[in-house]
Amino acid sequence: MKAVRLHEYHRRPVVEDVPEPRVSGPLDVLVEIGGAGLCRTDLHIVEGQWAEKSGVALPYTLGHENAGWVREVGSAVTTVAPGDTVILHPLVTCGLCRACRAGDDVHCENSKFPGIDTDGGMAELLLTSVRSVVKLDPSLRPEDVAALADAGLTAYHAVRKAVPLLYPGAQVVVVGAGGLGHIGVQCLAALSSAEIIVIDRSPDALALAEELGAAHTVPADGGQVAAVADLTGGKGAHVVLDFVGEEGTEAESVAMLRRAGSYFVIGYGGRVDIPTIDIIANEINVIGNLVGSYNDLAELMALAAQGKVRLHTTTYPLDAVEDAMADLHSGRLRGRGILLPAGG
Amino acid sequence: MKAVRLHEYHRRPVVEDVPEPRVSGPLDVLVEIGGAGLCRTDLHIVEGQWAEKSGVALPYTLGHENAGWVREVGSAVTTVAPGDTVILHPLVTCGLCRACRAGDDVHCENSKFPGIDTDGGMAELLLTSVRSVVKLDPSLRPEDVAALADAGLTAYHAVRKAVPLLYPGAQVVVVGAGGLGHIGVQCLAALSSAEIIVIDRSPDALALAEELGAAHTVPADGGQVAAVADLTGGKGAHVVLDFVGEEGTEAESVAMLRRAGSYFVIGYGGRVDIPTIDIIANEINVIGNLVGSYNDLAELMALAAQGKVRLHTTTYPLDAVEDAMADLHSGRLRGRGILLPAGG
Amino acid sequence: MKAVRLHEYHRRPVVEDVPEPRVSGPLDVLVEIGGAGLCRTDLHIVEGQWAEKSGVALPYTLGHENAGWVREVGSAVTTVAPGDTVILHPLVTCGLCRACRAGDDVHCENSKFPGIDTDGGMAELLLTSVRSVVKLDPSLRPEDVAALADAGLTAYHAVRKAVPLLYPGAQVVVVGAGGLGHIGVQCLAALSSAEIIVIDRSPDALALAEELGAAHTVPADGGQVAAVADLTGGKGAHVVLDFVGEEGTEAESVAMLRRAGSYFVIGYGGRVDIPTIDIIANEINVIGNLVGSYNDLAELMALAAQGKVRLHTTTYPLDAVEDAMADLHSGRLRGRGILLPAGG
Amino acid sequence: MKAVRLHEYHRRPVVEDVPEPRVSGPLDVLVEIGGAGLCRTDLHIVEGQWAEKSGVALPYTLGHENAGWVREVGSAVTTVAPGDTVILHPLVTCGLCRACRAGDDVHCENSKFPGIDTDGGMAELLLTSVRSVVKLDPSLRPEDVAALADAGLTAYHAVRKAVPLLYPGAQVVVVGAGGLGHIGVQCLAALSSAEIIVIDRSPDALALAEELGAAHTVPADGGQVAAVADLTGGKGAHVVLDFVGEEGTEAESVAMLRRAGSYFVIGYGGRVDIPTIDIIANEINVIGNLVGSYNDLAELMALAAQGKVRLHTTTYPLDAVEDAMADLHSGRLRGRGILLPAGG
Repeated sequence: MKAVRLHEYHRRPVVEDVPEPRVSGPLDVLVEIGGAGLCRTDLHIVEGQWAEKSGVALPYTLGHENAGWVREVGSAVTTVAPGDTVILHPLVTCGLCRACRAGDDVHCENSKFPGIDTDGGMAELLLTSVRSVVKLDPSLRPEDVAALADAGLTAYHAVRKAVPLLYPGAQVVVVGAGGLGHIGVQCLAALSSAEIIVIDRSPDALALAEELGAAHTVPADGGQVAAVADLTGGKGAHVVLDFVGEEGTEAESVAMLRRAGSYFVIGYGGRVDIPTIDIIANEINVIGNLVGSYNDLAELMALAAQGKVRLHTTTYPLDAVEDAMADLHSGRLRGRGILLPAGG
Repeated sequence: MKAVRLHEYHRRPVVEDVPEPRVSGPLDVLVEIGGAGLCRTDLHIVEGQWAEKSGVALPYTLGHENAGWVREVGSAVTTVAPGDTVILHPLVTCGLCRACRAGDDVHCENSKFPGIDTDGGMAELLLTSVRSVVKLDPSLRPEDVAALADAGLTAYHAVRKAVPLLYPGAQVVVVGAGGLGHIGVQCLAALSSAEIIVIDRSPDALALAEELGAAHTVPADGGQVAAVADLTGGKGAHVVLDFVGEEGTEAESVAMLRRAGSYFVIGYGGRVDIPTIDIIANEINVIGNLVGSYNDLAELMALAAQGKVRLHTTTYPLDAVEDAMADLHSGRLRGRGILLPAGG
Repeated sequence: MKAVRLHEYHRRPVVEDVPEPRVSGPLDVLVEIGGAGLCRTDLHIVEGQWAEKSGVALPYTLGHENAGWVREVGSAVTTVAPGDTVILHPLVTCGLCRACRAGDDVHCENSKFPGIDTDGGMAELLLTSVRSVVKLDPSLRPEDVAALADAGLTAYHAVRKAVPLLYPGAQVVVVGAGGLGHIGVQCLAALSSAEIIVIDRSPDALALAEELGAAHTVPADGGQVAAVADLTGGKGAHVVLDFVGEEGTEAESVAMLRRAGSYFVIGYGGRVDIPTIDIIANEINVIGNLVGSYNDLAELMALAAQGKVRLHTTTYPLDAVEDAMADLHSGRLRGRGILLPAGG
Repeated sequence: MKAVRLHEYHRRPVVEDVPEPRVSGPLDVLVEIGGAGLCRTDLHIVEGQWAEKSGVALPYTLGHENAGWVREVGSAVTTVAPGDTVILHPLVTCGLCRACRAGDDVHCENSKFPGIDTDGGMAELLLTSVRSVVKLDPSLRPEDVAALADAGLTAYHAVRKAVPLLYPGAQVVVVGAGGLGHIGVQCLAALSSAEIIVIDRSPDALALAEELGAAHTVPADGGQVAAVADLTGGKGAHVVLDFVGEEGTEAESVAMLRRAGSYFVIGYGGRVDIPTIDIIANEINVIGNLVGSYNDLAELMALAAQGKVRLHTTTYPLDAVEDAMADLHSGRLRGRGILLPAGG
């Protein structure tokens, strides 16, 4: 089968033939990939930024946002069957540690991360475990939802954690309405009646946010902290969801918080640096956010099936991965890039 | 009546005669002070550190940890009566804003803080509101519990917020087992069956912590992060309660956290400074903690009445406030210093 | 001023002149009533069903769903001012007991209930406390929201408690889509993305429910338990909200529950009767629901201001209270009946 | 190996030789049973009361409270190794359904229940799955903890659910301080500082409850509802844990509730029958309780290792199962009966 393989850091990955993976264990599931999302992390992998962290042995297959159709299942698999449409949770988890048993499988003590530390889904087939496949509503197409598997799931997870703080009339700021942020806005609108304030540099992103449910949009032109103060009667927001996490949004986000407010860190790159006296005097919280759990992904797929969460995508055949990466790198790519291995 | 008055910053407060306050409003409560706690904040006030923040007009009466007996009540007061033993919540709150109505009166939008921004309790009498008095079990004496009104309440509040994370077998680190920390250990032992690990520089503090329920004690000798790693099987603690909040405990506390763990900031003076990638990669939380609510104080008094929370105190007559402050400043004071205005 | 006064049980209340109430206490608020909701409870009061329970001395003024404009305030009132549009929480609470301080003022230990056990709002003026007035968005008119003060607040409160159980894709059954139920459907749609199944006898009620966000509607024709089983893949619903609470809905609601499901009792008149073995074998819950808190009412008003919760109403001048009651009794009244004292 | 086999309902089970089970699947764990608890459910099984419900094919091996040592493991098992001491969660669960993934494995959609619907642990060996074994602290002996696997786990689970309602000073009633109830009292004392009121017919049970942490004990002599009213200042208890669930405790428990209180049903046999108006007027809850989750069992074992939960037991060799059953049936058995297959 064809797969996008990375042979060396700082070199372009190549599309080449590799042996098809085969079902051998009782819980194995072999998935024909119908859509593999491409994201900045893939560029960073190629640049070697993850080399030490992942420890993966080269060559290997990229692709950590995957959806498709079940081709074959192991002897003990009963929850999906050949032909089912599925999306793949980004992690393969053990199901046995306390975290997995407590609904927090993202913190599984024995997980693998296909596309990062083992072969991923930019290939015609991906072998995974029944623990990772979420069966989809027949109305959903793999290429339309693949990018929700990681980017979308991260946004959903953060929103899900914030929702108990967001009573009707509460105010929530979304910093950055790009790939993750605009999904965050959709999730907020679906799960709460809080007043959504969106901040971004791009007028287009702000216009889209308004369509998706933002009550107020604010350009990131240096006046955003003051603007939030105005919009919140000088009190600040109950929750700030920061999808950027660098270049000053860290301090700005903290400055936008109401007393007892919570700052959700989702994007990264910078530093959170706050005097302890400010943390206690306002009793604020800083909440870390990683990708969501398997159940989170199933819930996000329910929102997608209801039409409440939608992604703009541009599709490429698997062979065109180089073009896709170039488009992403240059900023030409609109929406999320999706490779189509099964149709490539 | 006699009161401890601050006339000028950087000058010692003096004990002098001032007019007795009188009940005038329907919700007023006049309290004969039986114990007024002295704490480092009082030293900081004298040094002028709070001048700008509080904006209080000098001269005024110090004392923000107060307990005593009701002498007289306003016409609409029905929850306490003359003769009742009471402890005073440190804030006088409005009862009308959303925070007050939501059980979060610490974030009242219209509160006063006697002893900080208005006359406090280092005096024979203090005029307060019925919203601030907690009626005590007759077994409790004002001088024994006064210091729980602020210091103890802060420790209790943080523990109360941490308890839902602390299932039996979970591990919690207490950084600093001094005035607040040793109350924190007692509250943890009363409200959870988590494994308590206590870190302090002082062997005496560690010995006391062990008596109060610590499963492990660790000297703060530079090896404490490694020691916690050992005690937690390399995984880190579920919760770290940092009663110091300066001089390096901020970074050490974060380094002691397990994945998805929570760092509770209680002490202050330093800075929390963490790369956003570390916040998200481990999905950790930084939780601010201020003093507790009125209901928190009532709960803490229930623990005190059960004998589960006890303070070591040294008492002084009101006239000896200068000795008490000198003892506190020099480190000679053992336990909490309590002034006894009614007996002075 | 004119007021609707009940002089004797089983006799029609009369519109007569009574002295205007006056502001005397510091927390008093005098409200010019712009809309007073009429509901079945008013008919039951006239029939004497509440005589013993309320213990009210006759004659007194009816009206427990009130909204209007502030005319005058007591000396200590700062949160509203003359001219403000307000809705009144149905209870006048003390603000001092543990329940009031914990955000649960409905269980205030010292509350009064205007219109039930003291003079209510079917009058040109109502004297209340600042604790009971919620300031409204200027876009809202008293006559449009008055009926949300009690009926709407009850529905909102139940939904608010159920929402944490209702993840996207979870299934919730609403039994009875009448006055309260159709508000419940609107609240569910505003606060969750659960799949809403509505059961009612009336095709009109079902048609309206569908417009308001129901995914499925089921006629209450005897086949409703089987229909819910079909719609839930034989597993049952996560939550059943029973706005009827009599005539068999109690047992039917329990029969519609999924394992670990929760039955919310809102309507009343019948009995919940379940073998303990069924309660434990399926680990189900029965959750009582009374009216909402002050903060709940403020949140509901935020939904109303956003246009997410709307009521159908028919208005009557105050003098026409007899017609209004006759219309309600005979079933001729469409939507909620609202008296207009200030305009009457 | 020897096993206690039931060949026919209403006939005594017999000890006979059966083939040893063997590890065949990758997740299998073969456990040498060191203690198998005997309980009333075993008597009920023999009497045929579970025949229809379990649908088990006779003959089969009894025993649903099991602990022992790992003898052999499947190829994919890494969390336990031969020689480890383990206790067995009563269910064998799938790990794949939403409930299992959400920390609620008791409501697994595909579980088996050894000793009830498949071969149990009254045998020298039991074959189970790695999903069901909890590794024990070396200080714990299988015969001492076996009965915590089901009876103890049920009590712990109910207490764990009640704890968030039980702030210091709150009042909790335990109805029935027998096998489950006296574990409940120990769990309450370990996890809360609520005031525990225990009701039982037996003076011995009450005396034991007092030792274990009850603040008040009340004989079940007909005056218990009045006694609880007295002890709670006429307000009722925040929580009632009913370990009996029949013979009138259902109505008595409801009558003991405070407004907004919660009635936890644990024992069974009777009926809960409440007018809906009482449910809503007091806004009370009825909470069902089944056995606990795997993580609950691990937490209970942490309490056992800390010495906070202890059981009185009487041990019998496996061959003496008939004596043990006779002792249990006649009331001669003190504490829980434990069979010792490995030592038999």
